Amino acid sequence: MSGPYVLGIDFGTLSGRAVIVDVSNGAELATAVQPYQHGVIDRRLPDSNVLLEPDWALQDPNDYLDVLKHAVPDALTQSGIDPARVIGIGVDFTSCTMLPTTANGEPLCNLPQWRNHPHAWVKLWKHHAAQPEADKINAIAREQGFSHLLARYGGKVNSEWFLPKAWQILDEDPDVYEAADRLIEAGDWIVWQMTGVETRNACAAGYKGLWSKKDGFPPTAFFRALDPRLETIVDEKMSHAILPLGARAGSLTEQAAAWMGLPPGIAVAVAVIDAHAAVPAATVSGPERMVIIMGTSNCHMVVSEEEVIVPGISGVVADGILPGLFGYEAGQACVGDHFAWFVENIAPAAYQQEANKQGISLYALLEEKAAQLQPGESGLIALDWWNGNRSILVDADLTGMMVGMTLATKPEEIFRALIEATAYGTRMIIETFTKHGIPVREIVATGGLPDQNKLLMQIYADVTGLPIYIAASRQTSALGAAMHGAVAAGAMQGGYDTLTDAAAHMAGLRDERYHPIPENQAIYEALYEEYRILHDYFGRGENRVMKRLKTIRRAQKTLT
Amino acid sequence: MSGPYVLGIDFGTLSGRAVIVDVSNGAELATAVQPYQHGVIDRRLPDSNVLLEPDWALQDPNDYLDVLKHAVPDALTQSGIDPARVIGIGVDFTSCTMLPTTANGEPLCNLPQWRNHPHAWVKLWKHHAAQPEADKINAIAREQGFSHLLARYGGKVNSEWFLPKAWQILDEDPDVYEAADRLIEAGDWIVWQMTGVETRNACAAGYKGLWSKKDGFPPTAFFRALDPRLETIVDEKMSHAILPLGARAGSLTEQAAAWMGLPPGIAVAVAVIDAHAAVPAATVSGPERMVIIMGTSNCHMVVSEEEVIVPGISGVVADGILPGLFGYEAGQACVGDHFAWFVENIAPAAYQQEANKQGISLYALLEEKAAQLQPGESGLIALDWWNGNRSILVDADLTGMMVGMTLATKPEEIFRALIEATAYGTRMIIETFTKHGIPVREIVATGGLPDQNKLLMQIYADVTGLPIYIAASRQTSALGAAMHGAVAAGAMQGGYDTLTDAAAHMAGLRDERYHPIPENQAIYEALYEEYRILHDYFGRGENRVMKRLKTIRRAQKTLT
Repeated sequence: MSGPYVLGIDFGTLSGRAVIVDVSNGAELATAVQPYQHGVIDRRLPDSNVLLEPDWALQDPNDYLDVLKHAVPDALTQSGIDPARVIGIGVDFTSCTMLPTTANGEPLCNLPQWRNHPHAWVKLWKHHAAQPEADKINAIAREQGFSHLLARYGGKVNSEWFLPKAWQILDEDPDVYEAADRLIEAGDWIVWQMTGVETRNACAAGYKGLWSKKDGFPPTAFFRALDPRLETIVDEKMSHAILPLGARAGSLTEQAAAWMGLPPGIAVAVAVIDAHAAVPAATVSGPERMVIIMGTSNCHMVVSEEEVIVPGISGVVADGILPGLFGYEAGQACVGDHFAWFVENIAPAAYQQEANKQGISLYALLEEKAAQLQPGESGLIALDWWNGNRSILVDADLTGMMVGMTLATKPEEIFRALIEATAYGTRMIIETFTKHGIPVREIVATGGLPDQNKLLMQIYADVTGLPIYIAASRQTSALGAAMHGAVAAGAMQGGYDTLTDAAAHMAGLRDERYHPIPENQAIYEALYEEYRILHDYFGRGENRVMKRLKTIRRAQKTLT
Repeated sequence: MSGPYVLGIDFGTLSGRAVIVDVSNGAELATAVQPYQHGVIDRRLPDSNVLLEPDWALQDPNDYLDVLKHAVPDALTQSGIDPARVIGIGVDFTSCTMLPTTANGEPLCNLPQWRNHPHAWVKLWKHHAAQPEADKINAIAREQGFSHLLARYGGKVNSEWFLPKAWQILDEDPDVYEAADRLIEAGDWIVWQMTGVETRNACAAGYKGLWSKKDGFPPTAFFRALDPRLETIVDEKMSHAILPLGARAGSLTEQAAAWMGLPPGIAVAVAVIDAHAAVPAATVSGPERMVIIMGTSNCHMVVSEEEVIVPGISGVVADGILPGLFGYEAGQACVGDHFAWFVENIAPAAYQQEANKQGISLYALLEEKAAQLQPGESGLIALDWWNGNRSILVDADLTGMMVGMTLATKPEEIFRALIEATAYGTRMIIETFTKHGIPVREIVATGGLPDQNKLLMQIYADVTGLPIYIAASRQTSALGAAMHGAVAAGAMQGGYDTLTDAAAHMAGLRDERYHPIPENQAIYEALYEEYRILHDYFGRGENRVMKRLKTIRRAQKTLT
């Protein structure tokens, strides 16, 4: 007799997914996906003529409720389990995805008087229109003696984070800001809708909200320096009560239970950021084992008992990944996106024909051809900055670079050089961690890429010199959310008392693993040294050509 | 009543062409092309099992005679002129294309005992297998105090030149070397076949044979330092009698006249290198007006009354282009080849489909799209070294580089960046000439590219800041050869006494011309400064990554 069961709900960029998991062994019994009816809103508000500026990305919070109403019952039905045996629910969410609400949690965009105000809607994580506010925050922090507040974040606030987004509302639509009793992460909001209790989770508050367990939020003097109207933002619009991961936010309400086809009263965990939920689901519950979520971009996470300042990482947050440990995050802005760009813009017609003839994808053909090359055989090296550099240079204005092309250079050589470039970027991050006292001895990979691209995995092993394991689950964020649900329920209710316990029972690795091949490692050692020289030359100010070209480009694009 | 007429014969890489030209106005009355039956011999000797090593490129001298026997009579017939009204013949030839012969001019490869010896055949200009000999010459010149001999050539002998090729024969097949009474440029050899007189032309001797008008050939001490057996090469296998361009080599023999369908006795000019023949045919007869032959590669030529050492150019030769002036030559190794590489390897399937739909070539589609971009709008910059750098770095081991790519980078932006890179390379050459006292104020373009690519021409004008004119003739080398024929005949015979006179009457420009657009020039000024920084960083030893990548690449290719 197996069970009991937990429910993990993973809110992604385009859809939400519900997964029913066996608490005893982590088996995923059923999965159901509910696409968001309005997807990413980036051109005009739904049912209106209100157009959005470039770089905007909104969502409709009702689409999240539809996940509860449809995906959850679907998964339950599919699983065949008795809903009464569900002991806990966990939620992971993209972040910082945030919205303004009334004091009782009603999204402002649901109210007729605010419905035509773009700022009343959910700002999705990839809403990039708050860059001016991010720039102002960074400048003011630097100039007015607050830069220590950003030391944990590689020295810079990102435009995707909570404070730039909140400030953009105030800057551009002060009436919406005024009307908002709450500004809240969408993950915390959906937990509120399920439990009737407003909570804030330490993961999002720490990585996206400038909060730390030790010091809390920045002092009011900082907010005042930004804008006197922001001085009271935490007290008035947010909350000082930040709950650790795995904590029980509350119990499922009658109403939410009815939506979801579950009995009321089930323990609901506080929300967690999607990436960070994946860490225990990838078996990691302690230091020295890095989790990399490999997809359109790479997210690197590692925990440590020490808090140190690692330059250029996205953040270090006490309890931010696993309670009791400091959670470190770094990132690469362009990985799968890199290969997609190549396939769309670079692979020639003859290769498309060859792929069609073989009945495989162009991507598969390129991997096949690239896999036949020896390391270094292409004579190419690239910097993986097609979408800027997130870690460790934290510079969105850096761009791509490739060197070594000849008239004999083939498309698959360029393709392989792009894969290698992302591997060098990962090694740069790992070396930076190690150098600052956060050693990394193993990698556990998860996300979409490890499933598709064996060549990429081997190259990462060869370049980093580390063994790479693959998380057993293909939906580690959702599984991680379910594990949070198990911890919220607690051992007394048939769950677990810690994420570490949950990971020990519910997470696993595949048999498939990648070890560095010594001959390849030796070549990549030499190539990485070249990468490092070019990385510093183009990335650390010796030749600021990338920025100057961007300045010229912006000026010229304005002309056209 | 027009005429008299001259015949120009242009010996290219794959075919020879005969052109009948009106002496009075340069009108091209008829053209006939004779492809070489054996083309470029680079795999095995004709009618044999003798295989050739990589980098070999041979030709059959009998193919050249076929041009006399077929293309010339065809052109005459086509023109409808009276052959008796042909007063002069000029020949231009690829160079250094050279062969071993007997004392009476019989190619050794025509003799049964030598026919199976690869070294008995014509070595085509692009025979690159004498690189070891070139390397030895450069090292010995540097180490044993002969480097002044190479100062006129950017400091280095190229493997394509006469001495490396001759030494390769001696190194690898001393019997052939021994049996060769003569080692001779193919251009001089074909003139010999037409006139019965052995001559050597100053152009090939100067640019490819280390000869100078002032000092003659290098001293015997130099040849002895290379190899004692080479000490007497000039006296025994070559000739000290070097004739200036436009000089009369001799008169058409009975036999050659019969081959060609012409009366005997017609004045035949000494040979000239194909590129250099194009200069007067592009209207240039004095300083400050550079001729650029734009094709798979670019060849830049300018004349001056001064002899100066310009670092990194291919050569300066007294009387080498126009008698009485110093002729300067520089080059870019990869221009049209660059665009061909792009079209073959980079342009994606969707663009091929779009081109098919519009019924235009992929190249035309790319130019159309690239022409819609403003300068600098792509944010890209490239170094044009996909095939090494000929001038001014004289380094075949340099490779390509591009910087500025983002996920929004489109194929036409890369394509335009490659065009711009070749324009920056040309500007670098022009600035080097100007800086060393050889000013360039105008450009006359000829070759295949100006006909096809208006965008490229405008970019060259914008980048160099110079007006660009286009030679009227589409076969400037052949027209130039004909002009040499007119000078060999002389004014008394209805021709001209100097190439300057010939150019004044026989050469012209099209109405189509390109002037710099000031707004574009300003942007390109900034972009060229970026190019210069990258050029020096990667090209002058600050970061020798290109060479190190090539070394790794060579080692790895050996493994596979």
